[in-house]
Amino acid sequence: MRGAVLYSARDVRFEEREAPKIIEPTDAVLRLSASCICGSDLWPYRGIQPTTAPTPMGHEYCGIVEEVGRAVRAVKPGQFVIGSFFASDNTCPHCKAGYQTSCQHRQLVGGAQAPMLRVPLADGTLVATRDVPSDDLVPSMLAASDVLGTGWFAADAANVKPGATVAVVGDGAVGLLAVLSAKQMGAERIITMSRHEPRQSLAHEFGATDIVTERGDDGIARIKEITQGIGADAVLECVGTPESMKQAIGVARPGGYLSYVGVPHGVKLEGQDLFFRHVHLHGGPAPVRRYLPKLIELITGRTIDPGKVFDLTLPLEKVAEGYRAMDERRAIKTLLRV
Amino acid sequence: MRGAVLYSARDVRFEEREAPKIIEPTDAVLRLSASCICGSDLWPYRGIQPTTAPTPMGHEYCGIVEEVGRAVRAVKPGQFVIGSFFASDNTCPHCKAGYQTSCQHRQLVGGAQAPMLRVPLADGTLVATRDVPSDDLVPSMLAASDVLGTGWFAADAANVKPGATVAVVGDGAVGLLAVLSAKQMGAERIITMSRHEPRQSLAHEFGATDIVTERGDDGIARIKEITQGIGADAVLECVGTPESMKQAIGVARPGGYLSYVGVPHGVKLEGQDLFFRHVHLHGGPAPVRRYLPKLIELITGRTIDPGKVFDLTLPLEKVAEGYRAMDERRAIKTLLRV
Repeated sequence: MRGAVLYSARDVRFEEREAPKIIEPTDAVLRLSASCICGSDLWPYRGIQPTTAPTPMGHEYCGIVEEVGRAVRAVKPGQFVIGSFFASDNTCPHCKAGYQTSCQHRQLVGGAQAPMLRVPLADGTLVATRDVPSDDLVPSMLAASDVLGTGWFAADAANVKPGATVAVVGDGAVGLLAVLSAKQMGAERIITMSRHEPRQSLAHEFGATDIVTERGDDGIARIKEITQGIGADAVLECVGTPESMKQAIGVARPGGYLSYVGVPHGVKLEGQDLFFRHVHLHGGPAPVRRYLPKLIELITGRTIDPGKVFDLTLPLEKVAEGYRAMDERRAIKTLLRV
Repeated sequence: MRGAVLYSARDVRFEEREAPKIIEPTDAVLRLSASCICGSDLWPYRGIQPTTAPTPMGHEYCGIVEEVGRAVRAVKPGQFVIGSFFASDNTCPHCKAGYQTSCQHRQLVGGAQAPMLRVPLADGTLVATRDVPSDDLVPSMLAASDVLGTGWFAADAANVKPGATVAVVGDGAVGLLAVLSAKQMGAERIITMSRHEPRQSLAHEFGATDIVTERGDDGIARIKEITQGIGADAVLECVGTPESMKQAIGVARPGGYLSYVGVPHGVKLEGQDLFFRHVHLHGGPAPVRRYLPKLIELITGRTIDPGKVFDLTLPLEKVAEGYRAMDERRAIKTLLRV
C-alpha cells in the first residue's frame, strides 16, 4: 500500500509502505474510510519539532475492521470503528479515571494517512458504531477521532456549564470544534478570537456569539470590555504557543477555568502570575476515548456536524498538497479520500 | 498603642504606632483578642521579599468590634468578629463567585500584630460569631482568619472528596491545617511530607495516615509506592518554592488535582510538563471569607481544634522572639497575647 511519510521539514512523500498486519493478539487492522491532516502534524512539517527518521504520518482514523488478533473481543471484522491517537487498555486506573491518553499501557497510533492501519489494544481503543454510517457522516466520524474529541475536552476541562461566558483562543479546527462543544454544553456567550473570514463564519455557524479580531493586549482589553470587565468563566486555549497562552490567561476571570489542549511549544507559566489570577488550569492530550460514545451519538443523530471543519478534500495521493494548503492557511483542515 | 514594625531583614521592632481610627464610613476598628505571626511574614523577615519602608506587620485577626463607620450595617460594637487578610466588599462579581481575595475593591489588611486594628469594608469582610467565644476558642478563631482558611482552600481547590488519597507538601501551619481540612472533607488516606517530629505528630493528630520523610525524587518515589504507582488524587502544595511545586507535580496522578496556596517565589511551570501530566492546577490567595461561616461553626461546635498549630505563646511585646522562633523552626506558629 502507499501512504504519507515525512522525511524532513516540508518533505512529505506519498510512497510504498508495508501493509499493516496483526502483530500482537490485541491488535486490529482497519481499512480506513477516510484520513486527514492534523494541525499538530504541522509542528514536524514546519520543522519546529525535528524529524530524525522517515515517519509515517497521520493519527486520526475511522473505518471498517479488516482483521483482529485472537485476544480481541469487543470489535469484529466488518464493524465501523473510531479510535484515538493514543491506544489505551481502558481498564487501568488512569483509564478508569477518564484519562485514557495517560493509560499505563498507552501506545501512539501512527501512519493513518494510508488506506490501512494497525491499532494496538483494540478492545480498549476502538468504539464501534451500531451500523456502518452513511458516507456523508464519515467526515464527522473522522473528526470525532481527534479534533472534535479535543475541542470537547477543551470545553469540558474548562468546566463549561449552561449559561457560561466562554472565550476560545485559536481558530483552527480544534478551536472551531471547541466552539461547537461549548455550545452543546450550554454556553450562553461564546467569544472567538479569529482574524480569518472563513473561520469566523464557521465559528458563527458552530455557535460563536462574538468575534474578536484584536490580539495581544488589545485582544484582552476587547474581551474584558465584552464581559463588563469581569473576564470569561471559561477560556479554551487551542493553539499551544506562549502568545496564545498569555492571551488565554489574560481573559479568564478570577476563579475562572482555562483549558489548554494543543501541545505547548515553549510555554512557560509564571507561578506568581497564575496565583494572583486565581485561575483553574487543566489540559493535556485529550482523552478522546472518554467522549467517543457520546460524540458518536450526537453525530449519528445529526445533532452536530463537526465534519464541516474539512474545507479541502483531496485524494490521498495528493497528501503533500494537503499539508501545503494547511501550512499556508489556505485550508482549515484537509480530508484525504483513501 | 505599641505594635510590630519590620524595618529590614530580621529587624522587627515593637514600638509606638498611631492607634487606628475610622477613616472611611465603611471601616471598623477592632480590639484584637489575640494576634499571631504568619509563615508568609517570614518572606520579608528573611529579606527574600525586600522591605523598602518600615512596615506594620500582621494580617491575621479576630476580636471585639470597638467602633464602626456610619455606613457599616452588618457588625456592631461589642461583637466578636473574624476577617481575612484581604478586605472585600463581598458584593462584586468576583466575591459572588467566591473569590473575595480577588474582590474588585479589595484592600490588604495590615498591622494586626498590635492591640487594635482598622478593617476596611467591614460589612463585606467581617463575620461575627453568635456569642463572644470562650477564651480557649480564641486561638482556633484566630487560625480561621488565615492559616485554617488557607489550608481549607488548599483541600477545596484540590477537589478533596470522600475516599480521596491526598498528599500534602509542607508541614508548616498551613500544611498541617490542610491535613485537618482534607480529613474533614472525607479523605481516606492523607500523606504528609515532613521531617520534623513535632509536626509529624500534629499531622497525625489532624488526620495524616502516612508520613513521608524523603524529599525530591526519593519523596516522589515513596508516594508513588504508597499509592501503588498511581499517584495522589489531590496534592496540596503549601510552601511556594520551586522545589515544593516540583515535588507536588511529581506525585499527582494523571487527572489529579494540585492546589497551591503559598505565594509562589521563583516558581516557573513548564507548559509541556503540566500538559503530559494531565494535572488540574488551582490556587491563589485563599478566599477565606468564603469559608469563615463554615469554619466558625466547626470551631464553635468543637468539631475541630485548629488552634493546636500554635505551639508557642508570647506576650505581644516579645514579637521579635516570636519571629526568631519561627525563622529557626523552633516554633510552628507563634500566638501573641495582646
